[in-house]
Amino acid sequence: VKAARRTQHKTAREGRKTIVGRIDPEVLRFTAGKDRVLDIALAEAECFATAAHATMLSRIGGKATVVTEGQKKRIIRALAGIVREVRSGSFRISQNDQDIHLAVERRLTRKLGDLGRRIHTARSRNDQVAVDLRLYGKEQLLCVMDETLELGRALLKLARRHAAVPMVGRTHMQPAMPSSVGLWASAHAESLRDDISMQRSAYDFNDRCPLGSAAGYGVALNIDRRLTARLLGFRGLHENVLYAGNARGKCETVILSALSQVMLSLSRLSEDLILYSTPEFGYFVLPPEYCTGSSIMPQKSNPDVLELIRAKTTRVLGYASTAAGIVKGLTSGYGRDLQETKEPFIDGMQTARACVRILTALVKEINVDKKALLAGFRPEVFAADRALELVGEGVPFRDAYNHVKKHLGELEKVDYRRAVVSRTHLRTQGGMNFDESAAHFRGIKTFVSRERKRYYGSVRRLLGVEYPAPREREVT
Amino acid sequence: VKAARRTQHKTAREGRKTIVGRIDPEVLRFTAGKDRVLDIALAEAECFATAAHATMLSRIGGKATVVTEGQKKRIIRALAGIVREVRSGSFRISQNDQDIHLAVERRLTRKLGDLGRRIHTARSRNDQVAVDLRLYGKEQLLCVMDETLELGRALLKLARRHAAVPMVGRTHMQPAMPSSVGLWASAHAESLRDDISMQRSAYDFNDRCPLGSAAGYGVALNIDRRLTARLLGFRGLHENVLYAGNARGKCETVILSALSQVMLSLSRLSEDLILYSTPEFGYFVLPPEYCTGSSIMPQKSNPDVLELIRAKTTRVLGYASTAAGIVKGLTSGYGRDLQETKEPFIDGMQTARACVRILTALVKEINVDKKALLAGFRPEVFAADRALELVGEGVPFRDAYNHVKKHLGELEKVDYRRAVVSRTHLRTQGGMNFDESAAHFRGIKTFVSRERKRYYGSVRRLLGVEYPAPREREVT
Amino acid sequence: VKAARRTQHKTAREGRKTIVGRIDPEVLRFTAGKDRVLDIALAEAECFATAAHATMLSRIGGKATVVTEGQKKRIIRALAGIVREVRSGSFRISQNDQDIHLAVERRLTRKLGDLGRRIHTARSRNDQVAVDLRLYGKEQLLCVMDETLELGRALLKLARRHAAVPMVGRTHMQPAMPSSVGLWASAHAESLRDDISMQRSAYDFNDRCPLGSAAGYGVALNIDRRLTARLLGFRGLHENVLYAGNARGKCETVILSALSQVMLSLSRLSEDLILYSTPEFGYFVLPPEYCTGSSIMPQKSNPDVLELIRAKTTRVLGYASTAAGIVKGLTSGYGRDLQETKEPFIDGMQTARACVRILTALVKEINVDKKALLAGFRPEVFAADRALELVGEGVPFRDAYNHVKKHLGELEKVDYRRAVVSRTHLRTQGGMNFDESAAHFRGIKTFVSRERKRYYGSVRRLLGVEYPAPREREVT
Amino acid sequence: VKAARRTQHKTAREGRKTIVGRIDPEVLRFTAGKDRVLDIALAEAECFATAAHATMLSRIGGKATVVTEGQKKRIIRALAGIVREVRSGSFRISQNDQDIHLAVERRLTRKLGDLGRRIHTARSRNDQVAVDLRLYGKEQLLCVMDETLELGRALLKLARRHAAVPMVGRTHMQPAMPSSVGLWASAHAESLRDDISMQRSAYDFNDRCPLGSAAGYGVALNIDRRLTARLLGFRGLHENVLYAGNARGKCETVILSALSQVMLSLSRLSEDLILYSTPEFGYFVLPPEYCTGSSIMPQKSNPDVLELIRAKTTRVLGYASTAAGIVKGLTSGYGRDLQETKEPFIDGMQTARACVRILTALVKEINVDKKALLAGFRPEVFAADRALELVGEGVPFRDAYNHVKKHLGELEKVDYRRAVVSRTHLRTQGGMNFDESAAHFRGIKTFVSRERKRYYGSVRRLLGVEYPAPREREVT
Repeated sequence: VKAARRTQHKTAREGRKTIVGRIDPEVLRFTAGKDRVLDIALAEAECFATAAHATMLSRIGGKATVVTEGQKKRIIRALAGIVREVRSGSFRISQNDQDIHLAVERRLTRKLGDLGRRIHTARSRNDQVAVDLRLYGKEQLLCVMDETLELGRALLKLARRHAAVPMVGRTHMQPAMPSSVGLWASAHAESLRDDISMQRSAYDFNDRCPLGSAAGYGVALNIDRRLTARLLGFRGLHENVLYAGNARGKCETVILSALSQVMLSLSRLSEDLILYSTPEFGYFVLPPEYCTGSSIMPQKSNPDVLELIRAKTTRVLGYASTAAGIVKGLTSGYGRDLQETKEPFIDGMQTARACVRILTALVKEINVDKKALLAGFRPEVFAADRALELVGEGVPFRDAYNHVKKHLGELEKVDYRRAVVSRTHLRTQGGMNFDESAAHFRGIKTFVSRERKRYYGSVRRLLGVEYPAPREREVT
Repeated sequence: VKAARRTQHKTAREGRKTIVGRIDPEVLRFTAGKDRVLDIALAEAECFATAAHATMLSRIGGKATVVTEGQKKRIIRALAGIVREVRSGSFRISQNDQDIHLAVERRLTRKLGDLGRRIHTARSRNDQVAVDLRLYGKEQLLCVMDETLELGRALLKLARRHAAVPMVGRTHMQPAMPSSVGLWASAHAESLRDDISMQRSAYDFNDRCPLGSAAGYGVALNIDRRLTARLLGFRGLHENVLYAGNARGKCETVILSALSQVMLSLSRLSEDLILYSTPEFGYFVLPPEYCTGSSIMPQKSNPDVLELIRAKTTRVLGYASTAAGIVKGLTSGYGRDLQETKEPFIDGMQTARACVRILTALVKEINVDKKALLAGFRPEVFAADRALELVGEGVPFRDAYNHVKKHLGELEKVDYRRAVVSRTHLRTQGGMNFDESAAHFRGIKTFVSRERKRYYGSVRRLLGVEYPAPREREVT
Repeated sequence: VKAARRTQHKTAREGRKTIVGRIDPEVLRFTAGKDRVLDIALAEAECFATAAHATMLSRIGGKATVVTEGQKKRIIRALAGIVREVRSGSFRISQNDQDIHLAVERRLTRKLGDLGRRIHTARSRNDQVAVDLRLYGKEQLLCVMDETLELGRALLKLARRHAAVPMVGRTHMQPAMPSSVGLWASAHAESLRDDISMQRSAYDFNDRCPLGSAAGYGVALNIDRRLTARLLGFRGLHENVLYAGNARGKCETVILSALSQVMLSLSRLSEDLILYSTPEFGYFVLPPEYCTGSSIMPQKSNPDVLELIRAKTTRVLGYASTAAGIVKGLTSGYGRDLQETKEPFIDGMQTARACVRILTALVKEINVDKKALLAGFRPEVFAADRALELVGEGVPFRDAYNHVKKHLGELEKVDYRRAVVSRTHLRTQGGMNFDESAAHFRGIKTFVSRERKRYYGSVRRLLGVEYPAPREREVT
Repeated sequence: VKAARRTQHKTAREGRKTIVGRIDPEVLRFTAGKDRVLDIALAEAECFATAAHATMLSRIGGKATVVTEGQKKRIIRALAGIVREVRSGSFRISQNDQDIHLAVERRLTRKLGDLGRRIHTARSRNDQVAVDLRLYGKEQLLCVMDETLELGRALLKLARRHAAVPMVGRTHMQPAMPSSVGLWASAHAESLRDDISMQRSAYDFNDRCPLGSAAGYGVALNIDRRLTARLLGFRGLHENVLYAGNARGKCETVILSALSQVMLSLSRLSEDLILYSTPEFGYFVLPPEYCTGSSIMPQKSNPDVLELIRAKTTRVLGYASTAAGIVKGLTSGYGRDLQETKEPFIDGMQTARACVRILTALVKEINVDKKALLAGFRPEVFAADRALELVGEGVPFRDAYNHVKKHLGELEKVDYRRAVVSRTHLRTQGGMNFDESAAHFRGIKTFVSRERKRYYGSVRRLLGVEYPAPREREVT
């Protein structure tokens, strides 16, 4: 112990050099990778989690007490100061810090001396990054759910306003049957409902605390994992400490898979809008302030935003499979490979959120050109309806079908409006029920609000900082 | 109508040629692709769904009645006959049939004449394949849940039996801390619990009936979509008819993402077993009947099964991203592209199931070599424990850490058993609770049984065929 | 040696059981996977390679002679018989055979007794599958090059025939500048030229013999690797025996990456054709025998073939990344994981080839609708030309651009033909040079013929079977 | 023209606002994406290409002259100034600039007034980014080839130094046959030779100038595309202007596929080193300055660098498939989707280069532990050799194999060194030829030097800036 105390004094002078060791600077740069930039997104979570860990350490009874009640308060005050620094935008992670975890520990040590060097008792860096990512994921998933439902509402509003406006329904991009703008827009809205349900599943998956796993093998100290989980507002915790670590990468993959779903919906909506806003179709007029010009052709007004969403869909899908590909084939226990899942996760989340938000704004400004929509109808669109009329007169369907096929030239344009309204069975063009979807979105809104309150409440109680209205967190 | 009747007689002679049209045979072959083989897996579902559709048609009131009660009975009898043919293994889909849908319609027409030509009223092929895939997905997801929980139980049993057997815990594949076989095996079991929760989410996503969307734009006939959904045992239905079609591909992707999770768990377990069964480690001895030899080296006993699982993980991950990549950027409404999601879906499901099953059998036969496990311990493994001891004596952790780092040579081998048992906090090596996991798996078992009963009950009531004990469905 | 001879007699009775060992039948089925079906594609290559190996063994001098000249002749006669069996379609691989390699060895043993049991001297199964895949790859790459150039020629013919037919050039799917069918079609042809160059690179990569690596560590026998390489018609060989094995998976990935390129070209061409054959555009009329109808809508004529090509592009891209993902992170030396690259490789090759062929046939039958093409022009398409006119009068471009942008309404329709022809600089609409591309394709044709002659000549000399005109090898 | 001149004066005042139009700031941010950061990597290329374009404009004869000889000189002087600014690190791209292309044009206009507004005559932004990416790709590919060959040389040196040091050769991670460090290290070197050959193919693919395609449809001005291609040092050019644009994305995919190959080699080498540096194997001792510690376990020295390389392999593979996935299904002509291929391309290139460099440094410092290598041998490793001995005594191989299999216990440890040296056939452990590989690497070195000289010479002649020794270009 005396020898250890001597080491203590020396290292106090040497700073944190020994934590990292004498590593080649090129290696330091290589291993830090983009963490110095990416980890800013985790800075607040790191402070919250450290506050919870300190609180827990202060409650370990017996002679094992590592941190006293008073020391805990000093730690939490220092952490609250770091949160303010992060929020002011002045927080930086140096090359030497490597990541947010050492950056925070180092600041604490600078402010609190010895006390700062106690904070890492009974936890490991893997442990910290694991819990930070869960806290980040929780907050972000609530954001993306909120944003997705707003896009759903915008589409529902569009659907309601143009419920009965006829539109040629297509399959294989070719005219198929009479349909309506209402059916089209609410189909996209219903797709988003499903996407939110996947976000919700991912939210539940994510909502478990890994803290206390240390390096994946626990520690020989009687830490209280349930307490930290509760302090941080988690509904559950990963029980097996080794699995708590192994779940890293898995959880990110689950979330990215959920985000892939919403991106698929966005991508198909974008493709529809790109097609339907060409002059050859002209069904929809995109808001000019959401279109960009050409550097050489003065007449151009291009749907760049929609094309980027389409491409960014591939980016998010790629992130999901990259994250999974990294995890595949690893042995149990932490491997540095997992660091590489961080960028797919954080950038994937921010990409998905940015796409949802911008498309919401665009959808709100879409103009519907009824004349162009009507002009799209040709008699052939009514072929199936005609066949069903013959069925009504007793002809077996397959024969009615063949008859109409042979006499396509005789088809006449039916009144579109009638054709649209004639489909009255459940949720067809004539059987819409927008209220049900609206109520569904309201339910999600309530869920999001409640969870935010719960989460932000925990943070407030723990750290004493007022948790601000959730704003967007951008990663440069 | 008279003209239509004339067509009727002609086409009765011409057979189904006109349904498909005069398509180039090379094109027929190209478009059919692997459907002739793959669709066999959907044959029973096709019969069930057709039975539900016929029943619904028979209940449409008024003059619109397409199928009478008596006709319905004849149709269902014929469908039950086809099911028997499928089960006997004699059912074939010809090049001309293209897929299971036309194959069944054509058989019905051959047996029932005119009546067979009525069955396609108010539905489209997209509609059929969509509902068939949901029924297939439902049954298969119940199988994979059941199989995954059995693997979980096998691991739990291994964990329980060797709960306190010491094992070097590793990070970065390097020795890290004292751990136990119990912790290791139950970590893998807990991972599977999470995987089952994703399978359950996918199950709920899948458990909605798309039938009645026709070509995605409904039909001008008062069909009853709630009825068919109920007859087929679905808990819900896709309301918007266009979205009912657009959900194809999405649903497969959701399921494949869930399967990717279980594959990731399998892959890491396999990697562990490959490593730990090398002579240099020797922790586990694989059952020889699960190993294969070399054609040139007489001494070999290779973990081929585990390597294949590792590689098949990449296959399933690839399927998930292929399915998503196909859906991306499509316009609304059916496109033939979706056919290409069928093989990833069906083969991905069968691949995942086969991997889970074979690994379960292998895990049950694993031999644990305690001597080799103990031999793996070196004094360095206790370095963190020693640092914590110093903390207990009042040294700040970071200083204790540095002290131990500088005096690694002085570390002594601690009694492993004590080291393992000393970790008593929640779910560490010394704080296991296998009963909780066992109870969890029992709960899933109950869920699977209940859902199977419900589903097979619907089938039995609808089609009158005794639904057999679920057997594995292999796709050649 | 005496004991070994005793074993010899016993195993003669026991058959090949001991080669495979007493493996669980479920394991046998799992490890064989789809090899029993896939390996048929490798059957001829297996016979060629075995013939080369036998020839080499017969030339090892000194007392080490394993196979005499006369025995070699008997082996080759037996192999030629197997080739005939394969060609007749009657060759089957049993569950017990596992794969083509044991299937052939077993047949040889059945026919030749002891001699058959000598053939595996100094080689391993990895060795065999590696060389078989190279031979397969070689033949198939020549096919795909040939087929791709035929598609290029078909497009060039289309371009030449409609060289000056005006067509609105587009960016962002929106009208951009005056263009021509000639420019459009030859752009796609030029893309294929690039794709063939990548196939050529892959061909060179593949054209090296791995045989003689045994299990990756050579053998203690003086085998002549250069001889087998030459007998099999390879231009080079993998020198390092360990790398010869490690190159498996890599080589498949290189080939699949090359195939991905041609698929990308096909996919973009298909997308153009899907769009331009909608009634709203109507530029091209697809041959009806390449379109398919709908089961419910009598009027439909859908571009299913093109949609499938688009989707199959994702399939081939997926295969490329699956193959790479399997190889990633493996340790040196053979691992069974590599078996899983076989299906991506073989199915990817067959998929790409089928897509190229069917698109060639379709392109040859496309009808160009000049009236629809002209109708697509609107005055705005000439905006950039107008700005350049102003530049010609001394106005800086950026100002001319801004002026035209502000006065778009004043633009007049220019004579399209003049606009198209006015672009006379290198390879624009007015500066085409189809002869150069045609000459390029001729050069590739010559290369393909020469290589085929060389390869098939080697086979003929070695095995004495007449090598047939290359026909398509389909994988069921 | 007068009106145009008026516009000229107004826009002179308004600055470049009208080029971009009145776009929503949120949209500007969304569409710019990461271009403001990424495009710095393209800044020099942008200046070179603009210099070539200006030179070409100055040589257009007749009244069409857009830029005089004197004006050209002023433009080039201004561009050289921008290059210096870029090199000093002070160049920034503003939100308003969106990308490097407008940033440079705007600086030119600020410096040169009217003349700056002339520079965009007859080109488009797509055109510029396309040529910039080719120039960037060219320089970077030369770097990565150079770096890859250095890793190859480092491995060769390791192989030569330990050519005869025995090492257990493995398959399935299990001991297989006697091998040597020389064989192992040179296998990895030979893999890199192949990777360089793919980089070379990609280099040739990339080495064609797309400039002059304008928006993909040429311009009505007699520009000289061959001249700009020559001035920029390209060996060829994309002839068809539409394809010149369509090749974007394709070319990046080709390069990323080539980089995937080298990453696969790196990944397998890393995996070997991770495994062989565990205490259980101990074959290699990694240089401590390339290992990192743990924050909780004082004894740790982890191969983080190697794990990151393994994970970054997945990243680069993911980039290749993301780039391809973005291109798939696009219609002809530029789409904004392509912007999303920029980050995969640039970051993929920098990632691959960083991995190659750090692994080279690490390989140079590896320590080989001969004692541990010898300790790894067990008698079973000689089983195949024993079987071949029996073959030499006339026993058919399959019988010899079975005999040895049954009497494994009787195998004796052979002298390893003899076993290794006994394999004397081509390029086995005893038949190494390091000189041939060394000569091969020298040849590549010569190629790289020659191409660099050619490229940098073009730049120097064109722009008058001394081209510095190629240094690494890092993307933050």
